[in-house]
Amino acid sequence: MPIIECVPNISEGRRAEVVERAVARLRQVPGVRVLDYSSDPSHNRSVLTLAGDAGPIKEAVLALFEAVIPDIDLRTHSGEHPRLGAVDVVPFVPIEGVTMDECVALAKETAAEVARRFQVPVYLYEEASGDPARKNLEDIRRGEFEGLAAKMAAPGWAPDYGPAAPHPSAGATVIGARMPLIAYNINLATDRLDVAKKIAAAVRHSSGGFRYVKAMGVRLEDRGIVQVSMNLTNYEKTPMFRVFAAVKSEAARYGVTILESEIIGLVPAAALHATAEHVLQISSFSRAQILEEKLRGTE
Amino acid sequence: MPIIECVPNISEGRRAEVVERAVARLRQVPGVRVLDYSSDPSHNRSVLTLAGDAGPIKEAVLALFEAVIPDIDLRTHSGEHPRLGAVDVVPFVPIEGVTMDECVALAKETAAEVARRFQVPVYLYEEASGDPARKNLEDIRRGEFEGLAAKMAAPGWAPDYGPAAPHPSAGATVIGARMPLIAYNINLATDRLDVAKKIAAAVRHSSGGFRYVKAMGVRLEDRGIVQVSMNLTNYEKTPMFRVFAAVKSEAARYGVTILESEIIGLVPAAALHATAEHVLQISSFSRAQILEEKLRGTE
Repeated sequence: MPIIECVPNISEGRRAEVVERAVARLRQVPGVRVLDYSSDPSHNRSVLTLAGDAGPIKEAVLALFEAVIPDIDLRTHSGEHPRLGAVDVVPFVPIEGVTMDECVALAKETAAEVARRFQVPVYLYEEASGDPARKNLEDIRRGEFEGLAAKMAAPGWAPDYGPAAPHPSAGATVIGARMPLIAYNINLATDRLDVAKKIAAAVRHSSGGFRYVKAMGVRLEDRGIVQVSMNLTNYEKTPMFRVFAAVKSEAARYGVTILESEIIGLVPAAALHATAEHVLQISSFSRAQILEEKLRGTE
Repeated sequence: MPIIECVPNISEGRRAEVVERAVARLRQVPGVRVLDYSSDPSHNRSVLTLAGDAGPIKEAVLALFEAVIPDIDLRTHSGEHPRLGAVDVVPFVPIEGVTMDECVALAKETAAEVARRFQVPVYLYEEASGDPARKNLEDIRRGEFEGLAAKMAAPGWAPDYGPAAPHPSAGATVIGARMPLIAYNINLATDRLDVAKKIAAAVRHSSGGFRYVKAMGVRLEDRGIVQVSMNLTNYEKTPMFRVFAAVKSEAARYGVTILESEIIGLVPAAALHATAEHVLQISSFSRAQILEEKLRGTE
């Protein structure tokens, strides 16, 4: 049974009844599980985590639009987090028994149906986008709902699906496919923030580092140490062990050692397996060799 | 749903119809899956791999005795592999959602029932045995079926369950609980067999190495290299990364490097996770953080 994760973000983080109504609606969709949801009042935004196969997940996303469009009006919405629409962003993430290409196809089908059924314009992003200038969520969202009508009229910013102007209350939605994120922090045995910042700059994509690393240096006040705080956005192409080795080597440059690392939240098993495979120099390892997979599979 | 693996070895590897009949019987046991079976004619022995929860697995083992006792007569059995009985050895292996203690309890219950129902004496081994002299399978099996009557009469060799003399045709059975084995080989970038043998001697338990490592040095003729061929019998207490590091360090002593390693057959995911955790210096990692586990779990 294939597993796709879907993490819609909606522009409501204050009125619990609106969020609860949406979640209750999602729970009614057969074949979909609501794994988690959390609301941030200062962002005025909620993040929902769903899992299921392609068909049910698509139904769930459509049900989510149906549930929240009557309740969320971007014309009166404010919060700290940038947003374009009522259902602001919908990423599909391949987890098990499903390819990235299949998630891209699912993103496009869902986008077409959202545009058709709700007259909400949709931008594709990340792996689902064919335009390099429209892959990055921040680029698409720049200008936010308030600047959306002008942006949509500008050259190069026609939406991928739906009307050429914003939905009056629901704005626009960004739908796409991406790899699972790993929130990965490395703590350094030092209180020197400058070292953490220099290492972050060395490993992150934006300043010349690895393609799929976002990083910043931060101070952990209560512990008297500093941290390189990272998001790994594609653990297959920029694997954990390579990032760890680079941080370790950069730290050594300043006479600093790694104290420990930590994974915040969830990590795909494959990212850990790849690390073991690498350090043990295992040749021709196959996932079919994982005992639990074999015992769980059908005969 | 807990998963226990059970790997009974039966003393028949030539008459396919006997093995097929036993497997067919096992497939009828509700809640048990026959994952694999293979016969070795020169050993005159077959290895069956079953998976299921405690109750069904116990039923399957009893069904196996019922199926093969009429068919296998140790008085006329010969083969290269040492053996004591028709059903020669029955290990229970904790895989998921079950503890070693529970597998020990299951081994004892099953042993008692086998003795009662079939009048076959049973020795407990490995984790199920309380006697250090009777933990090791080779020690229990020494003398084989032909020496069994004399051995059972000797001091210290009364069986744990059942009659004090062998079953006339089915001999005795060894039942116990153990960790999953990992068959792990490390190939060296050299053709020097003496180096592989010295490294094997350094890391294996029998000559002073790690408690849960069996190892030997072998030549891979067709590739012109040598290999340290190992069985890791408890990956929690003697983890893969520690064995790898020791082999690497011993090899360096002779100016030899590691070419690659290989896992033969299955490996518990936890053994790979522990390796990643170690090399990435991850603090307070929990299995609940594995994405696939979370997505697969119930809400």
